[in-house]
Amino acid sequence: MDSTFEMTMLYDFYGDLLTDRQREFYDLYYNEDFSLAEIAENAGISRQGVRDVLVRSEATLREMEEKTGIIRRFLEVRRGLEAIERSTAEIAQLNRRSFHSNRLAELVEEIQQKTAQLKE
Amino acid sequence: MDSTFEMTMLYDFYGDLLTDRQREFYDLYYNEDFSLAEIAENAGISRQGVRDVLVRSEATLREMEEKTGIIRRFLEVRRGLEAIERSTAEIAQLNRRSFHSNRLAELVEEIQQKTAQLKE
Repeated sequence: MDSTFEMTMLYDFYGDLLTDRQREFYDLYYNEDFSLAEIAENAGISRQGVRDVLVRSEATLREMEEKTGIIRRFLEVRRGLEAIERSTAEIAQLNRRSFHSNRLAELVEEIQQKTAQLKE
Repeated sequence: MDSTFEMTMLYDFYGDLLTDRQREFYDLYYNEDFSLAEIAENAGISRQGVRDVLVRSEATLREMEEKTGIIRRFLEVRRGLEAIERSTAEIAQLNRRSFHSNRLAELVEEIQQKTAQLKE
């Protein structure tokens, strides 16, 4: 995974397990793109203090994923749903070209709605 | 959710976040069906001590789910995949009855393999 993407996923899945302060710094640094120095000045602590909080936060988030594997599993499900979407799109195309079945079109629509909903 | 089912799900998803002792007692009590007294005697601590460990374990697991909502999301995905399976089964039936298309049969098979794999 790309590092920013990985951090965003970790935060989305496990962010509520951080302390308020960890979450605040993490959000400012990774989502709002503030520098360590800016966060430090605003919080009235040292730049190293901010870095320590971020390092501990990241360790907590990574440990969660190592122990549960939930993001890995989530990404597998996403890839699977995308494969189902491709197969379904080809069924829709076959139907338009050859079968012209209203019921088949409805069933394709049901699958497409479901995959879209599960990918949200 | 049924309580045993709920406990099993919580343990499957978040069990690795418990301490070794918490995990051991949890497994003996919920999965192996030992009594509090039996676990206590085996571990050389009081029955109340075993109960305390289990209560804390359960609190940890429930807190994880409250904060992440991952099991709720997992169950939604399962229900969605089951809906996709039903729609796909009807497409297979339409194909056998009316369209007799090899390509459509292949696409149905692809979707069925994917849903089965994602439900594992």
